[in-house]
Amino acid sequence: MKNFLLRLSYDGTRFHGWQFQKTGERSVEGVLLGAWEKISKGEKIKLICSGRTDKGVHAYQQAANFVTGKDIDPGGIRRAFNSLLPKDVMINAVEPVVADFHARYDAKERSYLYLLSKQYSIFNRFYSYYYNRRLEVAKMREASLFLVGEHDFSAFRASGCFSPTPVRNIKAITIEEDDSFIRCRFTANAFLFRMIRIIVGTLIDVGSARLAPIDVKNILAGKDRAKAGKTAPPHGLYLEKIKYDESLFL
Amino acid sequence: MKNFLLRLSYDGTRFHGWQFQKTGERSVEGVLLGAWEKISKGEKIKLICSGRTDKGVHAYQQAANFVTGKDIDPGGIRRAFNSLLPKDVMINAVEPVVADFHARYDAKERSYLYLLSKQYSIFNRFYSYYYNRRLEVAKMREASLFLVGEHDFSAFRASGCFSPTPVRNIKAITIEEDDSFIRCRFTANAFLFRMIRIIVGTLIDVGSARLAPIDVKNILAGKDRAKAGKTAPPHGLYLEKIKYDESLFL
Repeated sequence: MKNFLLRLSYDGTRFHGWQFQKTGERSVEGVLLGAWEKISKGEKIKLICSGRTDKGVHAYQQAANFVTGKDIDPGGIRRAFNSLLPKDVMINAVEPVVADFHARYDAKERSYLYLLSKQYSIFNRFYSYYYNRRLEVAKMREASLFLVGEHDFSAFRASGCFSPTPVRNIKAITIEEDDSFIRCRFTANAFLFRMIRIIVGTLIDVGSARLAPIDVKNILAGKDRAKAGKTAPPHGLYLEKIKYDESLFL
Repeated sequence: MKNFLLRLSYDGTRFHGWQFQKTGERSVEGVLLGAWEKISKGEKIKLICSGRTDKGVHAYQQAANFVTGKDIDPGGIRRAFNSLLPKDVMINAVEPVVADFHARYDAKERSYLYLLSKQYSIFNRFYSYYYNRRLEVAKMREASLFLVGEHDFSAFRASGCFSPTPVRNIKAITIEEDDSFIRCRFTANAFLFRMIRIIVGTLIDVGSARLAPIDVKNILAGKDRAKAGKTAPPHGLYLEKIKYDESLFL
């Protein structure tokens, strides 16, 4: 048996999220499992991903692993997948990993991008969130600093979150602005359910002066979801990178 | 009766081009006519556009005019259209024009962008053409200079072109490159059927060294479509701007 890590991109627009849907709705996991069944001529595998993404959320690079009894080399797996997968999912790399590798438990660091657009464009309507008021980025940056570090993020956790602990460690938040976009990047050991989208919704409240930067400190301390901002829409969110220890790669 | 010019954007991905399709396929003209019938409660209008775009071709700014007996102000027309139109068409502006204004005959200058991507990205798969070999932009620029000016463009005209003359006047071609894209911009009084896509296909041949820049001069002089390059795919092409004399606006 061999354990392989897939690095893959997907356009979340026409997927009902990562997770396989018993109701038959289109999911990234579902199309991957279907493709592997064809490639392997019937082998049933379990796919473990670094973390599920919601409906409409994109991935520049998601990571998922699976164990197979088939003797196919990594390049062959990549080509076989890409020849069968629909155009909105693409395998970027296939890497052999140690036998007990687990894409979720072993992930050391996750990075996400939230893309806000300053002008509405029909060409970006599925790929960034257009917010129709001016956002003061300096204030958003100031507010974001209160969130960096290890904290109880209960205030930024959606109901339905299964994590046994609300504590997470945000290593960095960067907010860059150009003529067209505001790019908010988040790196943490892990995130709670919809945590980034709730943080972005709250930072938008700061940028548009509905909240002061210092309010974010108080919202964090208060641990009350109702005090934080709205959940920003999924189509601005991109999973950018998952980091693993090099020792896990063969 | 009032004559109005619509400036509009559309994402060509899910349209069978500009032109109304009797077979029922989705067209930009079709959705606009349908929306106006609702807005006006049944008025049938004729839409005249600056030039039809093919299936898959996008528009940052197309221009089309129509004559109406309804008494609605330009802002009202824009809002009514945008509330009814699907998300892949958007009216940017509505301008009152002189009674005999004709969006095609009166267009003085048309500008198009052809967007080539240097890396494949699933997020750009409908919005740029990924060409999988290195393109030498300096050579493409050198070749493009032979095309600027008034010429018989028979070599760059697709079969099925209805124009009585193959002569057109290209005012400018600019080719810009950054880390991700090569942007080719074309401005002319008018273009022949698929002329830009055939020119781009030919410039790709130059950039990838299948042709020398000087060959483009000879292809132009030879007036033989078979000697020019392939027609580049539609999803890299964007109608950017149509210019009219200011005197035509009320």
